[in-house]
Amino acid sequence: MPRLVMKFGGTSVADIDRIRNAARKVKQEVENGYEVTVVVSAMSGETNKLVGWVSGAAQGDTAGTPGFYDAREYDAIVSSGELVTSGLMAIVLQEMGINARSWQGWQVPVNTTSDHGAARIESIPTDNLDAKFTEGMQVAVVAGFQGLSADGRVTTLGRGGSDTTAVAFAAAQNAERCDIYTDVDGIYTTDPRITGKARRLKKIAFEEMLEMASLGAKVLQTRSVELAMRNNVRLRVLSSFEENTDNAGTLVCSEEDIMESNVVTGVACSRDEAKLTLISVADRPGVAAAIFTPLAEAGVIVDMIVQNISEEGRTDMTFSCPVSDVPRAEKALMDAKARGDFNFRELDKDVNVAKVSIIGIGMRSHAGVAQKMFKNLADDGVNIKVITTSEIKVSVLVDRKYMELTVQSLHDAFELERST
Amino acid sequence: MPRLVMKFGGTSVADIDRIRNAARKVKQEVENGYEVTVVVSAMSGETNKLVGWVSGAAQGDTAGTPGFYDAREYDAIVSSGELVTSGLMAIVLQEMGINARSWQGWQVPVNTTSDHGAARIESIPTDNLDAKFTEGMQVAVVAGFQGLSADGRVTTLGRGGSDTTAVAFAAAQNAERCDIYTDVDGIYTTDPRITGKARRLKKIAFEEMLEMASLGAKVLQTRSVELAMRNNVRLRVLSSFEENTDNAGTLVCSEEDIMESNVVTGVACSRDEAKLTLISVADRPGVAAAIFTPLAEAGVIVDMIVQNISEEGRTDMTFSCPVSDVPRAEKALMDAKARGDFNFRELDKDVNVAKVSIIGIGMRSHAGVAQKMFKNLADDGVNIKVITTSEIKVSVLVDRKYMELTVQSLHDAFELERST
Repeated sequence: MPRLVMKFGGTSVADIDRIRNAARKVKQEVENGYEVTVVVSAMSGETNKLVGWVSGAAQGDTAGTPGFYDAREYDAIVSSGELVTSGLMAIVLQEMGINARSWQGWQVPVNTTSDHGAARIESIPTDNLDAKFTEGMQVAVVAGFQGLSADGRVTTLGRGGSDTTAVAFAAAQNAERCDIYTDVDGIYTTDPRITGKARRLKKIAFEEMLEMASLGAKVLQTRSVELAMRNNVRLRVLSSFEENTDNAGTLVCSEEDIMESNVVTGVACSRDEAKLTLISVADRPGVAAAIFTPLAEAGVIVDMIVQNISEEGRTDMTFSCPVSDVPRAEKALMDAKARGDFNFRELDKDVNVAKVSIIGIGMRSHAGVAQKMFKNLADDGVNIKVITTSEIKVSVLVDRKYMELTVQSLHDAFELERST
Repeated sequence: MPRLVMKFGGTSVADIDRIRNAARKVKQEVENGYEVTVVVSAMSGETNKLVGWVSGAAQGDTAGTPGFYDAREYDAIVSSGELVTSGLMAIVLQEMGINARSWQGWQVPVNTTSDHGAARIESIPTDNLDAKFTEGMQVAVVAGFQGLSADGRVTTLGRGGSDTTAVAFAAAQNAERCDIYTDVDGIYTTDPRITGKARRLKKIAFEEMLEMASLGAKVLQTRSVELAMRNNVRLRVLSSFEENTDNAGTLVCSEEDIMESNVVTGVACSRDEAKLTLISVADRPGVAAAIFTPLAEAGVIVDMIVQNISEEGRTDMTFSCPVSDVPRAEKALMDAKARGDFNFRELDKDVNVAKVSIIGIGMRSHAGVAQKMFKNLADDGVNIKVITTSEIKVSVLVDRKYMELTVQSLHDAFELERST
């Protein structure tokens, strides 16, 4: 029998009515002839509640002391939300006449590393599940987000980990597809709030999905996409709240499965970026490491990095980060300068920029894509502040006020409203 | 090292502050030199919430159809509340500098039968715990109420099951004592709301505790007392919300541990009782079974049963049950009569009675205890409607309006306010 993995996120199982709605979709696939593994998240809100309790427990008697907690206990507590959903889903399915049962992470087992709070799945022996499928089980309802360490403790995979659980099961079970049900109906060429011309993509390549962070990351955990790419698991993103046809949602798949596509697949953007430039850094081997180590230690999320040759023996170093990280970044850099880790003349700061990117595997075989983008911006009178490129992506920083205009204009220029 | 089991119920771990309060008591016992196993219930309210979700899931699409649920899934869901508390307790203890960790039922493992929802503990191999105690663990925090069936599913022990978990661990670990922390500070000679002379008992025998249903059942699950009696586990009931000395609470122990006691230990009462009498039942072998089988099937909780010889070949059959069960009892009896299962002339009904009992292991060796009770009631002008006796208990049904008077009067007559 062909196998299918279906994953339902927190908003898709937020209450009993929604669980029942999700169960109807599962039933449909059983009737379509699949042996189904359902992976569920905790009901939305539950994980936050549990995390809040952990924080409360870890707060300590002496006010002001930062809370401590044992990540093994955190995992034991936080993983309980998925147990509840998996049991409820099994009951609802049984009531619909389906032979279903819940599986807790340790029951399968989902073997993981011991990195509590951010464990990685090492193996999923499917013997137990296979035996039950052979005995007549039609649906295995698996508690997502969790696993079992070698020393018998419960682990969790980090936020959004249920996507990874789903993909790992699809790989282990050699499933035909892994359907991720969520509160959006797919991946779009760009944010539909920016242009009404945004179009749902029928297919997108794994690589594009990974580069499409701003469009895709809220929908699908990055790690799950990497895992799907490595194991060539066909992922489909679709809505829990609509009637879905065979053609629904967006299929995330390998490049070979996409016969024909536009040169550019999507336009991504990120609003609250800041650009920092260290002007006239004394250039020497190791200076980049000297600059970015204290930033990393301060927890600054550095995105783009550009280094320009300046006068002899000096260089300018530019990077971008979220606006909210700027104060920490400034402090880390000034402290490092004061310590004599490196030297620069001045720190230039622009907190009013946004990032706009075009992404597409077609770029590899098409010259002139970047030029077309730059010309388009020039025609609109938009000044480009920083450029970075990868094989399938070109990103620019522009003044924040031009972000929407730039996205709309590029969406038009690359004709993304038209399907191939 | 001597071992101690400490159990905290739902109200004792209702929030983080209370968990911290409970943890301080645990720390005290660690400092007293014990290896401690802590058994925790779910935070109060959590189990009811989970049960509510199960009911919701089992409700079905078609309104009116009674809900169905798989007891295995019920157990998987409802047992999650204790997982949360055990993890939180471990974190709080660790923060107090104690080497503690949580243990889920399957991790120990707590081996049970497969009677989901009402499983019985079969064995608790302590190898895993022992190994960790040897490695330096000071406190094992065990999720109560749950276990593992032979086929690897999570089971629960039924309401109040955490008491049973605690006693079973005390037996398996050969603990010096099993301390049950609750919201009352012990077992009293009678309900303190009825007489201010009610006195906390320092000790009570297992048998007395079992007979003391109305005084004790809200404090300690009956099954846990039976288990403690069978394994001779010294149980102590004490308050989570007070500073406890060595002499705190009530010790429930074997008769031999009680050097000297009053003839009567306590006066129990139960307010909302009803008395039903089948008058002039055609007497034949099997008639009692014929009468009580339909009552049991209707879910009527029958308490006292008295059969009187009446005229030749006829008998009167009297029983008591909770007032709320009377309509079901009447229907069951009239239906059975209509089916011809048995015959009687009339059904006499008194829904205004209460039960008052005196309990004490001293009765065995003291004659005249029942007579003293009956004389006392006669002196008060209280008419006795039904009498039943066991080796260590005498119970009577009286008009409900006399319940308090009777309890107060018997408490005085047997001098229960005076400690031996």
